[in-house]
Amino acid sequence: MEAMADDTSPFGAARTLTLPGPLALDGGASLAPLDFAYETYGELNEDKSNAILICHALTLDQFVASAHPLTGKPGWWTRMVGEGKPIDPARHFVICINVLGSCMGSSGPASEAEDGQPYAMRFPVITIRDMVRAQAMLLDRLGIETLAAVIGGSMGGMQVLEWAACYPERVKSAIAIATAARHSAQNIAFHEVGRQAIMADPNWHGGDYYANGDAPTKGLAVARMAAHITYLSEEGLTEKFGRRLQARDSKSFGFDADFQIESYLRHQGISFVDRFDANSYLYITRAMDYFDLAEEHGGLLANAFAGTRTRFCMISFDSDWLYPTAEARIIVRALNAAGAEVSFVELSSPFGHDAFLLDVPELNATVDGFLRAGEGA
Amino acid sequence: MEAMADDTSPFGAARTLTLPGPLALDGGASLAPLDFAYETYGELNEDKSNAILICHALTLDQFVASAHPLTGKPGWWTRMVGEGKPIDPARHFVICINVLGSCMGSSGPASEAEDGQPYAMRFPVITIRDMVRAQAMLLDRLGIETLAAVIGGSMGGMQVLEWAACYPERVKSAIAIATAARHSAQNIAFHEVGRQAIMADPNWHGGDYYANGDAPTKGLAVARMAAHITYLSEEGLTEKFGRRLQARDSKSFGFDADFQIESYLRHQGISFVDRFDANSYLYITRAMDYFDLAEEHGGLLANAFAGTRTRFCMISFDSDWLYPTAEARIIVRALNAAGAEVSFVELSSPFGHDAFLLDVPELNATVDGFLRAGEGA
Repeated sequence: MEAMADDTSPFGAARTLTLPGPLALDGGASLAPLDFAYETYGELNEDKSNAILICHALTLDQFVASAHPLTGKPGWWTRMVGEGKPIDPARHFVICINVLGSCMGSSGPASEAEDGQPYAMRFPVITIRDMVRAQAMLLDRLGIETLAAVIGGSMGGMQVLEWAACYPERVKSAIAIATAARHSAQNIAFHEVGRQAIMADPNWHGGDYYANGDAPTKGLAVARMAAHITYLSEEGLTEKFGRRLQARDSKSFGFDADFQIESYLRHQGISFVDRFDANSYLYITRAMDYFDLAEEHGGLLANAFAGTRTRFCMISFDSDWLYPTAEARIIVRALNAAGAEVSFVELSSPFGHDAFLLDVPELNATVDGFLRAGEGA
Repeated sequence: MEAMADDTSPFGAARTLTLPGPLALDGGASLAPLDFAYETYGELNEDKSNAILICHALTLDQFVASAHPLTGKPGWWTRMVGEGKPIDPARHFVICINVLGSCMGSSGPASEAEDGQPYAMRFPVITIRDMVRAQAMLLDRLGIETLAAVIGGSMGGMQVLEWAACYPERVKSAIAIATAARHSAQNIAFHEVGRQAIMADPNWHGGDYYANGDAPTKGLAVARMAAHITYLSEEGLTEKFGRRLQARDSKSFGFDADFQIESYLRHQGISFVDRFDANSYLYITRAMDYFDLAEEHGGLLANAFAGTRTRFCMISFDSDWLYPTAEARIIVRALNAAGAEVSFVELSSPFGHDAFLLDVPELNATVDGFLRAGEGA
């Protein structure tokens, strides 16, 4: 990307910045200093009116449209971000910041505390709002006052809603995809299984495993496998795998991965642990479980958006059973009650929750149209 | 129960029997001898025409209507079996046999092999059909040729279908509840997560933990937690738990069980390990994943029921997402194609898959009506 040409600029690939803080957290603690790792694509225009903030999901990161430094894989949203895509560095200044609590360069449980040791479980429990406030601090430092758009799917969509609620004057357009305004009992249940799987791994050691050779990779892999099922639809799984056997003609009558779905899940689990920190998984799932935008606003979701002038676009997928369309409708009703400008579309896709990351042409068309309408206004 | 009066009878509570076998298994191995643990209620009538076989689900057992010897809890189907219930020991001779591979007295991985040591993972991988063939061997020994009915929910329903397919002449009526004729990719995926959780527990030791003090209880608890989510509906969870906090007024900003759903799941996991063997969990989930009744009959499910004179009753629940109504319809269509007599009803219940164990009056009414119609015929 062009912005990489000047390595002394705060804009470009693999940028990091440390701010003194402190950041007052919802849980009562405060955090200082704060490390940020982020990627930018494109150039901030003269009047700083073309910035788009992309908020990433639970296990994703700032590498939206650049190769992941650990896996070497291309960015996770090259379908949405790039030349001729709805979010185009030729037109937009794009920024994505590794969320607070994560493990790709921003402050998280693996970061050094004051005593020079990793925080581990001494890292304070954070919320989606804390993540957003931290992002706002970084944007302040970068001189970005207003965002043409904030966009994200899943936990990214929660941050979008939180941005619109916390900083309505800074968000011109908000695009929340495959998300919810609060975690349901079933959502919490799946996360709790993942956390218990990690904590059951004796290598977890109460979170103090960084100095050891062994991280709780087995527990983390199980957590990832359980979560991964929720990212896919039953129909999608049936279509992709069905009961097909993996590299064999008949059942082994043993406990190998006989079925393709077993082999796929094991691969998802094993490959995940190479790029993600188990403690970060605990902290970020906790932040999602704690998320309840209505609760933060006196129990009424519409209050979160009172008087807003932000344009909203809500997108759900018909096969997403993690954050089903019913959750999007709750948000849309609250936005309507608040008198907000809101577009809402349920898209059809066989991919389940993961649809926001996959090839769904209508998703691109929707985002493109919504962004262009905002730019023309 | 009356039948307990004569402890030398093969009928009554806490009965066990060992048969010499061998039982030829679908996987090619054979098993000998075979231990059976079972419960009976009521008396076999003169012409042996009133026997009802109840087939139990994955983690359940033969204690249908008698207290569980380990937990002291009442039988798991006292809503269905008892005085004035659809299955009534005053009218029926009721038998439930602990399935092959389980851990409540029938042969399973915890049983002694020829060398006097527990089989552990040397126990052969079994199928639902193997379980049913074993049950038939025991019924032969008990002199029960014909069953007035075979009934069961979930994995019990799979056995019901298998009974009707293997021994059509022995089954007068078959009642399969909340079940499927084959495991879907998503079903297999959830089981695989559970197995991986068990195998990730270092106390599992490749299955050889019986002589150690420590069983893989943490892994088994995680497996149970993941499975338990699939037994409940999203609506049911929301109604029962929502986002309510557990014994506190506000979030702890920590990793305790803040939410009631977390506390509930942890309890489900912890209490399960006191009554179930981890290796049995591996073997029985494997049997369920392998289950594909159509595959056993040349790929056409209707072939499984060709020429049958068994009366069938299929029952599904609208909130069951583990074995949804669509799976029941597949079976009903196959039964119709085979010219079988079949009643089918989808019942409404908020409880999800677990509805077959819970208070659903229409379930009792359906089973009662179906059984009485068969008895009147």
